[in-house]
Amino acid sequence: MSHNSFGHLFRVTTWGESHGPAIGCVIDGCPPLVPLTEGDIQGYMELRKPGQSRFTTQRREADEVKILSGVMVDDDEVQKTTGTPISLMVENTDQRSKDYSQIKDRFRPGHADFTYDAKYGIRDYRGGGRSSARETAMRVAAGAVARKVLQGVTIRGALVQVGEHKIDRENWDWSEIGNNPFFSPDPQAAGLWADYLDGVRKAGSSVGAVIEVVAEGIPAGWGAPIYGKLDTDLAAAMMSINAVKGVEVGNGFEAASLTGEENADEIRVDDVGRPVFLTNNSGGVLGGISNGDPLVVRFAVKPTSSILTERKSITRQGEEVDVMTKGRHDPCVGIRAVPVGEAMMACVLADHYLRHRGQIG
Amino acid sequence: MSHNSFGHLFRVTTWGESHGPAIGCVIDGCPPLVPLTEGDIQGYMELRKPGQSRFTTQRREADEVKILSGVMVDDDEVQKTTGTPISLMVENTDQRSKDYSQIKDRFRPGHADFTYDAKYGIRDYRGGGRSSARETAMRVAAGAVARKVLQGVTIRGALVQVGEHKIDRENWDWSEIGNNPFFSPDPQAAGLWADYLDGVRKAGSSVGAVIEVVAEGIPAGWGAPIYGKLDTDLAAAMMSINAVKGVEVGNGFEAASLTGEENADEIRVDDVGRPVFLTNNSGGVLGGISNGDPLVVRFAVKPTSSILTERKSITRQGEEVDVMTKGRHDPCVGIRAVPVGEAMMACVLADHYLRHRGQIG
Amino acid sequence: MSHNSFGHLFRVTTWGESHGPAIGCVIDGCPPLVPLTEGDIQGYMELRKPGQSRFTTQRREADEVKILSGVMVDDDEVQKTTGTPISLMVENTDQRSKDYSQIKDRFRPGHADFTYDAKYGIRDYRGGGRSSARETAMRVAAGAVARKVLQGVTIRGALVQVGEHKIDRENWDWSEIGNNPFFSPDPQAAGLWADYLDGVRKAGSSVGAVIEVVAEGIPAGWGAPIYGKLDTDLAAAMMSINAVKGVEVGNGFEAASLTGEENADEIRVDDVGRPVFLTNNSGGVLGGISNGDPLVVRFAVKPTSSILTERKSITRQGEEVDVMTKGRHDPCVGIRAVPVGEAMMACVLADHYLRHRGQIG
Amino acid sequence: MSHNSFGHLFRVTTWGESHGPAIGCVIDGCPPLVPLTEGDIQGYMELRKPGQSRFTTQRREADEVKILSGVMVDDDEVQKTTGTPISLMVENTDQRSKDYSQIKDRFRPGHADFTYDAKYGIRDYRGGGRSSARETAMRVAAGAVARKVLQGVTIRGALVQVGEHKIDRENWDWSEIGNNPFFSPDPQAAGLWADYLDGVRKAGSSVGAVIEVVAEGIPAGWGAPIYGKLDTDLAAAMMSINAVKGVEVGNGFEAASLTGEENADEIRVDDVGRPVFLTNNSGGVLGGISNGDPLVVRFAVKPTSSILTERKSITRQGEEVDVMTKGRHDPCVGIRAVPVGEAMMACVLADHYLRHRGQIG
Repeated sequence: MSHNSFGHLFRVTTWGESHGPAIGCVIDGCPPLVPLTEGDIQGYMELRKPGQSRFTTQRREADEVKILSGVMVDDDEVQKTTGTPISLMVENTDQRSKDYSQIKDRFRPGHADFTYDAKYGIRDYRGGGRSSARETAMRVAAGAVARKVLQGVTIRGALVQVGEHKIDRENWDWSEIGNNPFFSPDPQAAGLWADYLDGVRKAGSSVGAVIEVVAEGIPAGWGAPIYGKLDTDLAAAMMSINAVKGVEVGNGFEAASLTGEENADEIRVDDVGRPVFLTNNSGGVLGGISNGDPLVVRFAVKPTSSILTERKSITRQGEEVDVMTKGRHDPCVGIRAVPVGEAMMACVLADHYLRHRGQIG
Repeated sequence: MSHNSFGHLFRVTTWGESHGPAIGCVIDGCPPLVPLTEGDIQGYMELRKPGQSRFTTQRREADEVKILSGVMVDDDEVQKTTGTPISLMVENTDQRSKDYSQIKDRFRPGHADFTYDAKYGIRDYRGGGRSSARETAMRVAAGAVARKVLQGVTIRGALVQVGEHKIDRENWDWSEIGNNPFFSPDPQAAGLWADYLDGVRKAGSSVGAVIEVVAEGIPAGWGAPIYGKLDTDLAAAMMSINAVKGVEVGNGFEAASLTGEENADEIRVDDVGRPVFLTNNSGGVLGGISNGDPLVVRFAVKPTSSILTERKSITRQGEEVDVMTKGRHDPCVGIRAVPVGEAMMACVLADHYLRHRGQIG
Repeated sequence: MSHNSFGHLFRVTTWGESHGPAIGCVIDGCPPLVPLTEGDIQGYMELRKPGQSRFTTQRREADEVKILSGVMVDDDEVQKTTGTPISLMVENTDQRSKDYSQIKDRFRPGHADFTYDAKYGIRDYRGGGRSSARETAMRVAAGAVARKVLQGVTIRGALVQVGEHKIDRENWDWSEIGNNPFFSPDPQAAGLWADYLDGVRKAGSSVGAVIEVVAEGIPAGWGAPIYGKLDTDLAAAMMSINAVKGVEVGNGFEAASLTGEENADEIRVDDVGRPVFLTNNSGGVLGGISNGDPLVVRFAVKPTSSILTERKSITRQGEEVDVMTKGRHDPCVGIRAVPVGEAMMACVLADHYLRHRGQIG
Repeated sequence: MSHNSFGHLFRVTTWGESHGPAIGCVIDGCPPLVPLTEGDIQGYMELRKPGQSRFTTQRREADEVKILSGVMVDDDEVQKTTGTPISLMVENTDQRSKDYSQIKDRFRPGHADFTYDAKYGIRDYRGGGRSSARETAMRVAAGAVARKVLQGVTIRGALVQVGEHKIDRENWDWSEIGNNPFFSPDPQAAGLWADYLDGVRKAGSSVGAVIEVVAEGIPAGWGAPIYGKLDTDLAAAMMSINAVKGVEVGNGFEAASLTGEENADEIRVDDVGRPVFLTNNSGGVLGGISNGDPLVVRFAVKPTSSILTERKSITRQGEEVDVMTKGRHDPCVGIRAVPVGEAMMACVLADHYLRHRGQIG
C-alpha cells in the first residue's frame, strides 16, 4: 500500500512539491531491454508544459527530465531498461514563491489548502505544494515509459468540452489535434474556444472541461476482475488527477438513459472469422476486461478556483477573510490535463499488460 | 496486490460464483472489540435480496450470512471482533442451472462472457459465474461490518434516475426511502417509475439508472493524496460494481460547465468558530481529502443486457447466432445496486479511517 | 497490504480460529485451466494431520477440505481452475474447549496469549485461537494448489534435527522419508529420535527441531530484487510459521565462518554448454534470484511451551500464578511443520513464477 | 506490490545503481510534523561510509544526502515533515568504472552477475549495478528518518562474530561500540579481529560475519499476525541485505536444541504490578507480536566473493574462464552491514508502529 504510488507490476511512485527543489518519480517493474532515452520522454513533457499559449499558465519551466537509474547502454549501443527501478527527475526552476506568500495562512476556496491543513497540521503553501498540478508532470514522464512497454497500442487524448461548449463529434478528426492549442479534434470548436477563453481569461475567471482518452490496439483479455478491473483502475487513475470530479467509460452516464436493446453491443464475425462488435457503447470494456475494441474514457475537470475574484474564506486561525489569488493560473486547467490523461491511460495499460501476462502467461 | 480484494487496512476479499456452493468474503484488519453478530449483517442483506418486488429479479435466495471466524463472546457476554480475519459465508440455495445451459457456448452481448473467455480460456457460464452480480451480496455483508467500525457516520443511498426519468431534487426526503421499492427519496418519482418499469419489464426490456450515495459525519482529513485520495478510492469502488459505467463526486460532470465563481465553495465560520462551507459543490472532498461536509457520490448503471429480445452474437466456436436470455433478470439492475453502493462507501470509509489514524494518529 | 495474506500474484489469505466452526483460505490469482480436485489437496492434508502417531498431538481431525469456488468441469470432463478466487474450507470437528477453560485468564508462557491480549484487548483463548498451529492446515491446502501451478518442480521437506540430535547427512536418502513418523531422510536418526521422544513425551516435556526444505527444477531467474528477492520471501514465509525462530538459506549461518574461497560456488559448463555450479553453498539463490540449482532452506522450530510442568506466569488481572497446560500437545511440533514448510515453499515459488512471467514474459 | 519497496504504512522505495549518477529513496507515509533535516540523516550515513578504515572498502564517497521533498520549515522555524513523500538522494562521485570493465562479460562467482543476466537479459556490470551493496546507503538514510518517527525507542547494532571468532557475551558493553572499527561490544574481540582481518585482507581473501541488532523501548502489541508478524518482517528485512544467508530471533537456531522448560520465558509482576518476563529467550516476540522486552535479531553475512584469488567461472557466451576481481572490496562486508541492520530494524518498527496504530488506535 502506498499513498503516492499506483499500479502493481508497472508501479509508479511520484514525489515532489510545486516549489521544492525538484519533482520526480520512480518506475518499478518495467520490463528489461526496452529502449529508453531522455528524448523518448521529453517530447511528452513538452505537450504538458506550462507557458505554451496564452490559454495556459504562464509559469516558465524547462521541465527537463533526467534519467537517474534503471537504464544502460547495451552491446548494440542502444540504451535500454535493465529491469531495475527507473528514477526520473525534473528540477523546478521557475518558482515564484513570493506570489504565494499572501496565501500562507489563508485557505483558497476550492483548493486543497483547508483539507491538507486539517489532515497534516502543516502544509507547503507555496504554489499548492504537493497538491499542485505540478506533480502531474511526472505522470507524463512515467506515461512515456509506459508507452514504450505497450507494443502496437495507440493512445490519444482530446479535449471534447470547454465550459458548456462541446465539440461536434461528427467533425472528429484526430489529425487536427496538433493544429490548435486545445488538443481539439474539431477545428471549429477550437476556434470557438479560443474566443471564449480569451474572454474568460481577461475576466480573471475560469471554466471546466471534459477530456476523452482513447486507446487502440489492446487485445481482448486485459483486466483482473473483480477489484482489479480495467475500468476500475482507469477510473481511479483519472480521478486522481487534480480537479477531476467525474469519470466515465464508453457511454458512461448516458447509458443510464438507454434501454438494453440500445446499449448492448452485438457481435458478429468478420470474413476471417474474428469476432467483431457492431458498436462500441461499452467503451472497450466488458465485465472489467478489455474486449479488443478501442478503450474510451472521459473525465470531467472542474474550473480552477484560482481566479481573480475575491472569494469568502478563512485563515488558519479561523478569521473570515476575502481571498484572491494573484499567482499564475489557467483559465481552463483541463487543457493541460489532456497529456496527463493519456499518460495515466498508458500507465494503467502497461500495468494490466504485465498483470495479465503474469497470471495467464 | 490482489485482483479480488480491495482496501488496505480494512481489507475485503470476496470469492464465489453465482452457481457455486456458496459465496463469501474475508475481512482483514477490522479493529478488535467491535460488537458484531450475524443479526447486524442480515438486515443489510435483506435490502439487497432478490425477489423482493416485481421490479427485481425473481431468484429466491435466503441470503443467510454466517460468521465463521474473527469474533468471540467477551467477558460481558457481548460478541465482538477479535482483530483476526472475519470470514463470512452465504450458501447459494436457488441456482437454476438449467436456465443457463443454452448459454454455455454462447456469448451474451453486453455481458462479460466474451471477455472472461478471452482472458481465462474457461468460464463458469452458469448465471454469469464470477461476473454475476451475486458477488455483490458479500460486499453488502462486508459493508455492514464496516459500518460498525465507523462511529457517528451515516451512510444512505438513493436511486435518483431510472431511464431518462430523474427525481425532482426539490422533493428530496430521506424518510421516503423505505416507502417505495426503489430507494427513491422522491415519492412522486417512485410512482412514475413503477408504471414505467412495469412497461419495461413486460416488454422484456431493461433500462439504466443513477444511484447517489451520501455519507455524513466524516471529519475533515480522511484521504491519502495522491493515489490514495478518498475520491479516487470511491471512484474505483463504485466502478467495480457490475454494470457501472460512470462515477462522479459532488457536481461531477456538471462542474465542467461551470465557472470558477460558480463552482468553488466559499468558507465562513459559525458562531463557535468552526469552519463552514457555504455550499457543497465539491461533494465533501477537496484535493482528495474530506472537508467535513457530506460526501456525495453518484454512479451510473447501464441497462442489463439480459433481455427478452434476440440479439446478434456468436458462439465460442465463432459461429453467428442469435441469443436471447431466458433466465431471471432485472428490468433495472440499478435498484439493487443502491445497498451495494452504500456498502462500498462504508468499506472505503472504514479503510480511510484506519489509514488516517495510522499515518496521523 | 494485508495482515493475513501473503504472496502477490499467487496470493493466499487464511482465516479461522482453532476452535471456531471452520478454518479456510482464499487463493487469488491462480492461473486458469489448472486441473484441480479436492483429492489433489487431501493427500497433503493427511501428511500434516494430528493424531498420526504417538509423537504428534492427539487431536483427531478429519481435516476434510472442500473447494467452494474457483473451479469448474471443463468440456473434457476435467475439473479445472477458472482463474477466479479459490475458496477452501475445513470444518473443525474435534475441539475440546473444556481443555482450555482453565487458561481463559491465564497467559501460557512461551505462547502468544500475553501478546494477543496486549495488542487486541481480547483473545480467543480456546486452543490458542488464531495463534494456534491449526491455521497451518490451510497453508498446506494452498500449497497443494501451488504445486499444481509449478510444472516440473519437486518440493520435498525433511526433519534434520530433533533436540540436539542431528541427522547424518552422509545417510541422506529421500526415499526413507515415508518410512518413519518423522519425515527423516536418515533411518538411523529416525530410530534414535523415536526412543528420545518417547522419553520427552512421557516426561511431559518438549524439544525443538530443524526442518530442511529443498526445491528442484526451478529455472534460473526467479526472484525480484531487491525487496522481492526469492530468499527474502522464503525467509518471511518460514518465519511466519508458528514457533519458528530462525531461517537460513544454503550454508546459512555456517557461511559466517567461511572464507570467500570456501564459500563461493564456482562455475563451469557441461558437455552441451550449459552452466554448471560446482557446489551449492548458496542454496540456489544469488543476489536474491534463483540460479537453477536446488533451493535449500532450513528453519528452526522452538520447543512448544505447552508442557506438563508448572511454569510461573500471570493472569490478565496481573496476579502471579503457576500454569500447566493439560490440553493435547506435541512433544515436538517440528515434525508436523515439515509439510507446512513444503507448502510455504510451494506458495512462494508459485508466486515468483507468476511475478517473473509478468515482468519478463 | 513492488519489487523495490518495503513496508506498508512507512514505505520505502530505493533506486539507483552503483555506478549510475546517483542513488536515492522515497519514503512514503511518514507522519507529518516530525522534525527532520539533512543533518539528522548524515550522521548515520557516516557510519556506513566506505573508506573509513583499512578493513572496509577503499571507495571514497562523500555520501552526502539531500532532501528533495516532503519537508518544510514550520512557523516555529523548525523544518518538519509534511506527510508527503520524502525523496532523498546521494550522488555517486567515486565510481571507477574501468575497474570493472574486465568483468563485463564475465560472471563473478558468488555474485549476482549470473542470475541478473539470467533474469533480465541485461545487467549493469559496473560495480555490481543494482545488486551492489551501494544501495544499502539509502536504507541507512531511510532508517534515520524512521528513527525520528519512533519515540523512546533505542536501536543498536553490534558485530558479534567475524569468521569463526565470536565475541565473549560476558564482555558485552554497548559503550565500546564506538571505540573500535568493528562495532564490537567486546574490546578484546575487536583486538583479535584487527589482527585476523589484517591477515585476511593481505591474503586477498574474505570472511563472513554475524550481526546482532537490538531494539529497546518497544511496547507490547506491535506486529500483525499472521503474515505481518513482526519477526516475519524483520526476517525479510535482514534477508534482503546483500550477502545475508540467515536470520534468527532471540535464541534462534539454538532453540531447536532446547527443551520447553529451558526455552519458555516465565512471567512475574514487578512491584507496581507490571508484567515482567524473567528471561528473554523469545527475543522480544511472541506469536509474531512484541512483548515489551528487547527485540533481538541476528543475521549472518557470507564472505564476499570479490577476492584476489582466481576462481573458475564462465562468460556470458558460455566459455570457461578464470575470474579475479581487482576492484575495491571489503575483507569482511559484515562490518558495514551493522548500520544497515539497524536501519532495517528502524524502518520495520516505524512501519509496525503505524500499522498497529491504524488497526487498534
